[in-house]
Amino acid sequence: MKISISKNEFYNAIQTASHAISQNSPLPSLRGIKIEAADDALLITGSNADISIFITLKKNDKNNLTIMEEGAILIDARYLNDIVRKLDSDMINIEIIDGALTKFTGVAATFKINGMRPNDYPSVDFSEPVNSISMPTADLLQTIDETVFAASVKETRPIFTGVNVNLSDNVLTFTATDTFRMAKKKMELVSDASFNITIPAKSLNEVKSTVLVNNPDTVKIALNDKKAQFISGDILFQTRLLDGKYPDTSSIIPKAFTRFLVMNRMDLIRAIDRTTFIKNDNVSVNRLQCSENEVVLTNKSQEIGESYEQLAASYTGEPLDISFTAMYVMEAAKAIPDMQIKISFVEEMKQFILTSPDNDNILQLVMPVKTFN
Amino acid sequence: MKISISKNEFYNAIQTASHAISQNSPLPSLRGIKIEAADDALLITGSNADISIFITLKKNDKNNLTIMEEGAILIDARYLNDIVRKLDSDMINIEIIDGALTKFTGVAATFKINGMRPNDYPSVDFSEPVNSISMPTADLLQTIDETVFAASVKETRPIFTGVNVNLSDNVLTFTATDTFRMAKKKMELVSDASFNITIPAKSLNEVKSTVLVNNPDTVKIALNDKKAQFISGDILFQTRLLDGKYPDTSSIIPKAFTRFLVMNRMDLIRAIDRTTFIKNDNVSVNRLQCSENEVVLTNKSQEIGESYEQLAASYTGEPLDISFTAMYVMEAAKAIPDMQIKISFVEEMKQFILTSPDNDNILQLVMPVKTFN
Repeated sequence: MKISISKNEFYNAIQTASHAISQNSPLPSLRGIKIEAADDALLITGSNADISIFITLKKNDKNNLTIMEEGAILIDARYLNDIVRKLDSDMINIEIIDGALTKFTGVAATFKINGMRPNDYPSVDFSEPVNSISMPTADLLQTIDETVFAASVKETRPIFTGVNVNLSDNVLTFTATDTFRMAKKKMELVSDASFNITIPAKSLNEVKSTVLVNNPDTVKIALNDKKAQFISGDILFQTRLLDGKYPDTSSIIPKAFTRFLVMNRMDLIRAIDRTTFIKNDNVSVNRLQCSENEVVLTNKSQEIGESYEQLAASYTGEPLDISFTAMYVMEAAKAIPDMQIKISFVEEMKQFILTSPDNDNILQLVMPVKTFN
Repeated sequence: MKISISKNEFYNAIQTASHAISQNSPLPSLRGIKIEAADDALLITGSNADISIFITLKKNDKNNLTIMEEGAILIDARYLNDIVRKLDSDMINIEIIDGALTKFTGVAATFKINGMRPNDYPSVDFSEPVNSISMPTADLLQTIDETVFAASVKETRPIFTGVNVNLSDNVLTFTATDTFRMAKKKMELVSDASFNITIPAKSLNEVKSTVLVNNPDTVKIALNDKKAQFISGDILFQTRLLDGKYPDTSSIIPKAFTRFLVMNRMDLIRAIDRTTFIKNDNVSVNRLQCSENEVVLTNKSQEIGESYEQLAASYTGEPLDISFTAMYVMEAAKAIPDMQIKISFVEEMKQFILTSPDNDNILQLVMPVKTFN
C-alpha cells in the first residue's frame, strides 16, 4: 500500500472511525483502525463488539487522494490519531515498507510504525439489509435527543438499555424507558416497510456524534432482526440490536387525565434545577402542590434544608399534592421542543405525562414518588 | 445577620473563596464558607490546612451591599455555590432566621439552609507580616508559569514540592526543581527586604486562579518564616510555607558551555510533541544528534516504532549525541517567552540549559538520560 491524502480529510475519517474503538479491547487488532487502499478509494474501518464504522473516501478535489499502490494495514488507533493530528504538512503519505511496518511522512517528520496484519482483523459483515427507510438527519438527531436519556443504564434487564424503534401503519415510534420514566416520540413516515427493533442507547449516542454530526441532509436506516445500519455521505454506521421482545408500553400511558398544569418550560426547568442540591440518600425529590390559586414547588432534606418556590403556572382541576424525582421531570421537560409545557395528571399516585400544550407527538411519562410529608 | 447584595458580585467572591475549600475536609466547618456582615463590609473566608482566602466586600455601587443586621454564619460551600449561581434574581437576600438556619431569597425562590455556627470555625491569623514587596501582577503570573511546573509532584522530599523564592541584593529569584530538571527565573527588584522562603507549588497555582486572575495592576507579597500573603484588590490569599532549607542549586548550573543550538522555539516544541506517543515504560525519550551539518531528533520504541525529523536549527560546536525526557524539554521550551530558543550543552552526559538567545533571566535546566543506542 502506498497512498497520499489530505491530512485534514484523513484525520476526520480516522476520528470518526475511532468512535467504534475500545482501547481496552481484548483483541489487539480491534484496537486498530483498518486502512485499505483499493482501486479508487480509501476504506477505513473501526469496530468493536457492538458497533462498526466503515468510511469510503473516494478520490476528490478536497481529499486529493492518490493511490500509488493498493493494499491494507491495521494501525493502533491511538498512534494513528496522534501522528496524523500533529503532522507538519497538509498532505500525509502512508506506505507499507516491510511486512506490517508502515511509514508516515509529512515534510520533515517521518514515522515508521509497527502495524498489524489486516488478516488478523475480524471480518465484519457490512452487507446492507433489504428493509430500509430514509429520514431527514435533523429529525433523527432530535428524536435521539428526545428519547435516549430515558433508557436504563443498568444491565439488570438488558432490553431497557435500548431504544425501541417501531414502524407500522406509516407511523415511526421511538420508545425508551428505565421503568421509572418513559420517553416516546411518534412521527409520520410513509413507507411499505414495517419493523420492531431495539437499538442499544449507547449506539444511538455514537450515531449522533459520528454520522449525524457531519450533517448531510438525509440518513438511510437499513435493518434486519440482527443489525441496523445508518448510512449518510461517506459513512456507514452499523450496530447490533438488542435481543428479546420490547414490552408493550402503551398500557402504561393513562387514557384519561383530570388535572392539567401549563407553564413556561424553561421556568419549570430552572425552578427544579435550583433545588437539586437538596438531596436525601443522594436523590433530589420535588413536591408539587397545585390548586387553581397557586402552584408551589418545594424540596426538603433533614440534613441540608428546604426550598420553596411559587410557580407562574396555570392549573385546572382538583387540588393535587404529588412528589417526583427532580432529575426525571427536568430531563423530560428539556426534551419537549416548545416554549410552553403541559403536564397532565390523573391523581396523586398515578404516573403523569409531560407534552407540548398543542400535541403529544413527544410524550414524556414519569412515575411519582411516595413520600411521607 | 441580614444583608442584601448583588448576586454576581457575591457569586464571584464565594467562587474565589471556594478555591481554599477541600470538600473532604475532616473538619465539617472547613467545608463551609464563612460569611460575616460587619459594619460597612461583608467578609468572606474559605480555608484549609494549606491556604486561606479572605475577601472584603465594601459597600459600593457595583455590589449594592446593604447590611440590615450584623452577624456571621458558615454555609457548606457546595450548597452556597449552587444556590447563588442558580438564583432567580439580580440581588440576593441572606438572613439568619433561627440559630444557624439561614434564609436565602431571590424573587420567587426561597431557601432555608442549615448553616453551621461560626464559633466552630478555626481561627485563622490573617495579620499581615512586616516584610513585604510589591510587583506587577502580570510579572508574578508569568513567573509562576515559568517555574511552577518544574516542582516535584512526589512527597518523598517535601521541600521540592515548593517553589523557592529568594530576595537578596535587589534580585528576586524563583527556583523549582524535581531533581531531574530545574526552572529558575531572576528579576531585579529594588527593596530593602531580603528573604528566602519556599512556597508550596499548589498554593502558587491557586494564587494564579484566584488573586491574579482578577488582574489588578499590582500584587503585594507580605511574608515571614511561617506564611506568605498575596494581597490584591479585595482579596487576601494566605499560604503556609514549606519547612526546611531549600538546597543550594547554583552549583548545578554548569559554568561554561561548549556547544550551542539555536532554533525557532515553537518548531522545537512541535517536533518533540509529534514523537511523544512513542514510549518505553510509559516515558517518551528523544535522542538529539547534532553536528554543524545537521540536527536530527529521533524517538524509538521496540513495540511502537520510531520517528525521524531533521530540525531547522543552527548548531555550533563539536558533534553531540544526547538523549532526554521529551516532556522535560517540551515544558522547559514552553516556559521561554521568546520566538527563538537557545540550548547550551557541555558534553553528552552533562545537564544542559534552555534560555532565550539574548539573556538567561529565565533558565531551564534538564538532566540528560542514559540510553543504549
